[in-house]
Amino acid sequence: MSMERLVVIGGDAAGMSAASQARRLKGPGELEIVAFERGGFTSYSACGIPYWVGGAVPDRDALIARTPEEHRARGIGLRLRTEVTRIDVAGRRVRARDLDAGTESWTSYDKLVIATGARPVRPEMPGADAAGVHGVQTLGDGQELIETLARARGRRAVVVGAGYIGVEMAEALIDRGFEVTVVNRGSEPMSTLDPDMGRLVHRAMEGLGITMVNDAEVTGVRTGDDGRVRAVVTEAAEYPADVVVLGIGVRPETSLAEAAGLPLGAHGGLLTDLAMRVRGHTDIWAGGDCVEVLDLVSGQERHVPLGTHANKHGQVIGTNAGGGYATFPGVVGTAVSKVCDLEIARTGLREKDARRVGLRFETVTIESTSRAGYYPGSSPMTVKMLAERRTGRLLGVQIVGREGAGKRVDIAAVALTAGMTVEQMTALDLGYAPPFSPVWDPVLVAARKAAAKVREAG
Amino acid sequence: MSMERLVVIGGDAAGMSAASQARRLKGPGELEIVAFERGGFTSYSACGIPYWVGGAVPDRDALIARTPEEHRARGIGLRLRTEVTRIDVAGRRVRARDLDAGTESWTSYDKLVIATGARPVRPEMPGADAAGVHGVQTLGDGQELIETLARARGRRAVVVGAGYIGVEMAEALIDRGFEVTVVNRGSEPMSTLDPDMGRLVHRAMEGLGITMVNDAEVTGVRTGDDGRVRAVVTEAAEYPADVVVLGIGVRPETSLAEAAGLPLGAHGGLLTDLAMRVRGHTDIWAGGDCVEVLDLVSGQERHVPLGTHANKHGQVIGTNAGGGYATFPGVVGTAVSKVCDLEIARTGLREKDARRVGLRFETVTIESTSRAGYYPGSSPMTVKMLAERRTGRLLGVQIVGREGAGKRVDIAAVALTAGMTVEQMTALDLGYAPPFSPVWDPVLVAARKAAAKVREAG
Repeated sequence: MSMERLVVIGGDAAGMSAASQARRLKGPGELEIVAFERGGFTSYSACGIPYWVGGAVPDRDALIARTPEEHRARGIGLRLRTEVTRIDVAGRRVRARDLDAGTESWTSYDKLVIATGARPVRPEMPGADAAGVHGVQTLGDGQELIETLARARGRRAVVVGAGYIGVEMAEALIDRGFEVTVVNRGSEPMSTLDPDMGRLVHRAMEGLGITMVNDAEVTGVRTGDDGRVRAVVTEAAEYPADVVVLGIGVRPETSLAEAAGLPLGAHGGLLTDLAMRVRGHTDIWAGGDCVEVLDLVSGQERHVPLGTHANKHGQVIGTNAGGGYATFPGVVGTAVSKVCDLEIARTGLREKDARRVGLRFETVTIESTSRAGYYPGSSPMTVKMLAERRTGRLLGVQIVGREGAGKRVDIAAVALTAGMTVEQMTALDLGYAPPFSPVWDPVLVAARKAAAKVREAG
Repeated sequence: MSMERLVVIGGDAAGMSAASQARRLKGPGELEIVAFERGGFTSYSACGIPYWVGGAVPDRDALIARTPEEHRARGIGLRLRTEVTRIDVAGRRVRARDLDAGTESWTSYDKLVIATGARPVRPEMPGADAAGVHGVQTLGDGQELIETLARARGRRAVVVGAGYIGVEMAEALIDRGFEVTVVNRGSEPMSTLDPDMGRLVHRAMEGLGITMVNDAEVTGVRTGDDGRVRAVVTEAAEYPADVVVLGIGVRPETSLAEAAGLPLGAHGGLLTDLAMRVRGHTDIWAGGDCVEVLDLVSGQERHVPLGTHANKHGQVIGTNAGGGYATFPGVVGTAVSKVCDLEIARTGLREKDARRVGLRFETVTIESTSRAGYYPGSSPMTVKMLAERRTGRLLGVQIVGREGAGKRVDIAAVALTAGMTVEQMTALDLGYAPPFSPVWDPVLVAARKAAAKVREAG
């Protein structure tokens, strides 16, 4: 009897976590593991790229959690710069091209993990591929951007997009000494927040010297005679730019899966069951940025490309592929980011999410502080909370503040997971001491007010 | 028909929160409110006293959340420096002494709130009342200590007790330029942690230049000819001291309640129902440091003197006394404190607590970091987790680290409240970005390891 072979497509967080976990459960004498990665790196923190570009992280290698050599030393047959070009589900094999040699060949599998990640949304506009216009998804992107910044002819940077990548890149470019303009198609930055909370981010970014342009659709990029970018063009205006960073989100990279007839959801991501198996397929798993995940609050699938989920997916897939049992129950939609000293966090549903799934709700927004008001370093914090009418169930929390604001959202993330009501939350026994919190934690203040509003609404 | 009268005994967090909340629900034309306070202040943050003594908080008034005048302006009949000396339950009246005039009189009540707080444990030893020996429970204590520090003849301070007040006072005295010795009867500081975690605090305190003396029972205080303290004496040694701070805990101040025949628990605190009514009494409520509270994890009563609970109790009592409905379901035992840049947090049960209530459990201790390892300012963090055998239910978490360690305990506090298993916790959707957390939050790392250990134990 020949040894079983596990094939992994994609050598980043989800894929290599799956490979590593399967290897922990089954040794090289029991299971062969082959992983294909079209790039030259494995297991790196894409989330760390803005901090490398900004200079807070000194070098690229710091972002690599585990090198190809380390994976190989653990008995994982890793093929770098090798791109899978086809999945033959019926034949249980994948076709892969060695990008350097230019050769293609088939590799059969008993078990398959699809971890093809996401691809950045590239605006369909003239000049989007001009020199000086950069994405920031891969280590290669980061390296190219750093080189552009070093030799830029001026100090004007335009960031297209004001989601978390956009605001993090705004910070990075400020840290590099650039004048930064952020061009955003939405009405406020951070569309993962409600616009009233996004407005707080908007004001804070202006306070940091960032020029924030909202409601602006980019129509093109103007280049000079040398082919390099000169300006970002919108319907209303033109924004001079020596460098342009695109931070307008990503889509699941599922072209291979789609061609193989695997099931995709409304957001273009692979659909899996709770064990991260591709629906309808016993021996194919998928995880990371190429899948859709269940939103436990709305009950619907979402695409949430975050490294923390990709790592969990990999862990679950590797456990199952290695003969164990694990599940990924879903997400509640927690995200945290910062722009300079401004911390931005959210979990659960925004107002429009709640409406879309038919929920009626009450909202409250409160101002509090990160520490006891009298304690040095106490800073203001705004907490918005959504609770369902009648049941009082917590639906979502958004927080904007300074130090200590961001990770407070975890309180709400756990409460959402547990299905708590805001009334139940008012009694939560949270850590209190003057350097850490007011005597009523800001999340409790919001919960009290939300509970009162739910009661009044009846 | 005469107006109903609510009498409140104790003008600090629980008492005045209750009075204020009752006043919100019932105006001065509906309910008379009389509050007796034997001291000269109301509604102050006792938890802030170490930071005032240490100089981080500039003045006493910053610690006062609401002054007597503010309470009176809201229609609360506040009698300062008036000590209740007897509760006549059958006669529905209290006897109070005006401490300045020396007169006593009866005041009848329809509803009574007992918020008499706690009294510091004073060691029964020679010299405990000597000049230069200070408690730190009241604003008056803090003022006296500050005056002693200003005129101290030397720079040697001894803190007796290594609980959270002890370690906070050690920090305050360091900030004031004193050489600090902490004398502790336990085997490690912070007996609210398991000793293995207390040892981390021990080492960190030594790193801060604090001399830590464990397993040392104080037998007395040696004074000079001037009656001022010269040294703290233990069985084994003598520790020279120009000032001594007692931080050896508090007991419920329930002498009045006991004399009135009200029910007390094993820890000497008043016993209440979930609406904070004294058991067996319809119109008497009690809250704050003078009551015992239900520990939701062990199912037993505990004495947990913390301002955050006192405020919640007051809110619940005031709502009920004002004709509304609210409950305080209990605590999970969350506490957070710091000594200089060391953050110390705990929630739920320690090993000995779990054993005492008959639980079998697994423990894990993991090392992780506050942020992504490559992100500047990332600092080490140790997380200990206890989970019940077989069920895998989370029982407790202890965290020792630097910035970002303390409030992470809230994740566990909510999970405990919800009765989550450590296996469920492994899937928690916590906020992740490199400046805020590693891709696996330290609490998740501990949960994964605990879940594995529970499974292995079977």
